[in-house]
Amino acid sequence: MLALGTTRSCIRELFEYGLRQAAVVGKENVYDFSLGNPSIPAPAAVNESIVAILRERDSLSVHGYTPAAGAADARAAVAADLTERFGMTIRPENLFFTAGAAPALISVVRALAVEGAEVVSIAPFFPEYRPFVEANGAKFVVVPADTKGGFQIRLAELERCLTPHTQAVIVNSPNNPSGVIYTRETLQKLAAALKAAAVRFGHPIYIIADEPYRELAYDETEVPFLPAIYPDTVICYSYSKSLSLPGERIGYVCVPDCAADSAEVYAAMAGAARTLGHVCAPSLQQLTVARCAAVRPDLEAYDRNRTVLYDALTSYGYECAKPNGAFYMFVKAPGGDAQAFSDRAKAKNLLLVPGGDFGCPDFFRVSTCVSPEMIQRSLPVFRAVIEEMAAR
Amino acid sequence: MLALGTTRSCIRELFEYGLRQAAVVGKENVYDFSLGNPSIPAPAAVNESIVAILRERDSLSVHGYTPAAGAADARAAVAADLTERFGMTIRPENLFFTAGAAPALISVVRALAVEGAEVVSIAPFFPEYRPFVEANGAKFVVVPADTKGGFQIRLAELERCLTPHTQAVIVNSPNNPSGVIYTRETLQKLAAALKAAAVRFGHPIYIIADEPYRELAYDETEVPFLPAIYPDTVICYSYSKSLSLPGERIGYVCVPDCAADSAEVYAAMAGAARTLGHVCAPSLQQLTVARCAAVRPDLEAYDRNRTVLYDALTSYGYECAKPNGAFYMFVKAPGGDAQAFSDRAKAKNLLLVPGGDFGCPDFFRVSTCVSPEMIQRSLPVFRAVIEEMAAR
Repeated sequence: MLALGTTRSCIRELFEYGLRQAAVVGKENVYDFSLGNPSIPAPAAVNESIVAILRERDSLSVHGYTPAAGAADARAAVAADLTERFGMTIRPENLFFTAGAAPALISVVRALAVEGAEVVSIAPFFPEYRPFVEANGAKFVVVPADTKGGFQIRLAELERCLTPHTQAVIVNSPNNPSGVIYTRETLQKLAAALKAAAVRFGHPIYIIADEPYRELAYDETEVPFLPAIYPDTVICYSYSKSLSLPGERIGYVCVPDCAADSAEVYAAMAGAARTLGHVCAPSLQQLTVARCAAVRPDLEAYDRNRTVLYDALTSYGYECAKPNGAFYMFVKAPGGDAQAFSDRAKAKNLLLVPGGDFGCPDFFRVSTCVSPEMIQRSLPVFRAVIEEMAAR
Repeated sequence: MLALGTTRSCIRELFEYGLRQAAVVGKENVYDFSLGNPSIPAPAAVNESIVAILRERDSLSVHGYTPAAGAADARAAVAADLTERFGMTIRPENLFFTAGAAPALISVVRALAVEGAEVVSIAPFFPEYRPFVEANGAKFVVVPADTKGGFQIRLAELERCLTPHTQAVIVNSPNNPSGVIYTRETLQKLAAALKAAAVRFGHPIYIIADEPYRELAYDETEVPFLPAIYPDTVICYSYSKSLSLPGERIGYVCVPDCAADSAEVYAAMAGAARTLGHVCAPSLQQLTVARCAAVRPDLEAYDRNRTVLYDALTSYGYECAKPNGAFYMFVKAPGGDAQAFSDRAKAKNLLLVPGGDFGCPDFFRVSTCVSPEMIQRSLPVFRAVIEEMAAR
């Protein structure tokens, strides 16, 4: 715990370095692409709902405890929205509201973490998965990244990672850090491989679908609904990105009826949430979600950033799988060592997260949830760094 | 995890039974004293602050991530308030905002849970302490209740519970379920015993001060500030009761500078919070606390309930230590078996929580955070049950 509390994430370190540098060289001379913090405001309906709730309802019903699983109207609204969108009946009882996707994920991992359990993650992956899994009773197993195939999934490598101890595979699509969405074909192959392994090992292997970026898809790319492809799926969702509410800590777990031992998995997840000190998710935000369950973000700003950065960077010679989701690009580091490249960029106040902690030490992450104006200012610097590398 | 998710707390079961019975016999014929849910609204300053924050600040700064430890202005406001009230300098850096007291407690337990660690709790205690401790790496040790001395602390019994593995003692005053506040004298004796044991065992023993009821004290009873009596104290606080915000999940850990290895304990607690999926406490509520750190509840309604119930019940022959804090009374069960007595009361739709899970199977808890009107309706039923017992 002390190590986890003293070792900072490299993302946070870069971000805070940027704040300090801004004080020295001026904010306009720092190009910070470190954080995955939404740069578009919450849809107007969110704050309007909050004010209306405070006006219409009495204090005790707004700020009081909800049931641990969530307020009835919030669960009903989300269940109806999911059912309508994905053609599979999701009942309010399948849902359990949580303080964001992180405790959702951890509750599911804890629920599945029998003695010797292994949880598989596919590189590149969100670095916090590692402490989430390792500090909650399971072994963290990494499938090497599909760096040559545009960050889909290397199935042969994945199959080599499956053992009789495999309890779950975390699937994060749209992906942080690659911005890539797994295709329906990729997911169908994954499903077939997991199904075969589950039969072989004689117990279910769950997909934990970590979906905070579900609504952030561009070019009308499909984000397949995983339970319809692989029934033994548990969804962890967050409104952090879709409603730009990362600080408010509101999300949910969905254990669909089709999942093996659905009721038991749900109950064990609820029990695990109890051991995390979960009493109920923040109540005012639950009531807000009840009114905003069908509100979708306006993605135009993210989409424009993505296009501008992708076009510019590839024209300078950077190599990058075109992202069609989330708000990240994952770029091959010129020279092959992302830490060295990131340090070189940092010397010019261009802050890029090296991919080591994401399981890809030769790539760096560019967050595209930034101001268009900063992107414009940063382009000459991106160009200068790669030219410098080429001239070495 | 499955057991924790399927075994309901007896408090929740009673509460839900009450809701079902209300549908059958009418709401006016059910007397529900089960839940510890505030019955007074949040102070007006709370909702006024929320509306002002939404009006004055932009969406990203209201709903965005704060640092994991909390927003700078929230930490500063609380530190200033604590420093002013308790004559000990509390710096913003001593504070770590959490989603209520439960994850605060669990983070501290996880931080201290070295191999073989024991955490001591003093009966009567909040039942969730047990899963909080047992599911987070430590052994749960119970000091028997001081049922004859008005629910202070039996020091000789406590000393018998201290071993070389004792890492912490949870102190909850004002107490749930007894409503009693430990006196300065009790706490000084506790401090002396722990200090001697710490010297004997060669390592600090921490007090974890669980203080959601700190502001709920009547008759001007002192609630001593524990770090001033016993330096190795870590405070877990919640605004659930003081600002009537239980659903909003906002509280903090305070590791004062005087605590042994203060910086390391703080860092390990922060690391533990990370393993619970804590990113930041709900941001809008943090900003609200920044404006309401010095707001105190109006206790008149709770105080009146307490007096009416205490006077009536003791006049009927019930035995009860007079509560001077929180919003509970802990009453000796006529006949000696609280479960049997609770069942008998339940048959008359009078819902009282038997004390077994609190570590006192011969007492029952009466929540006094209810409507005065329900109290009046309930008094003849309280009288009838004890008379029935006497007539047996």
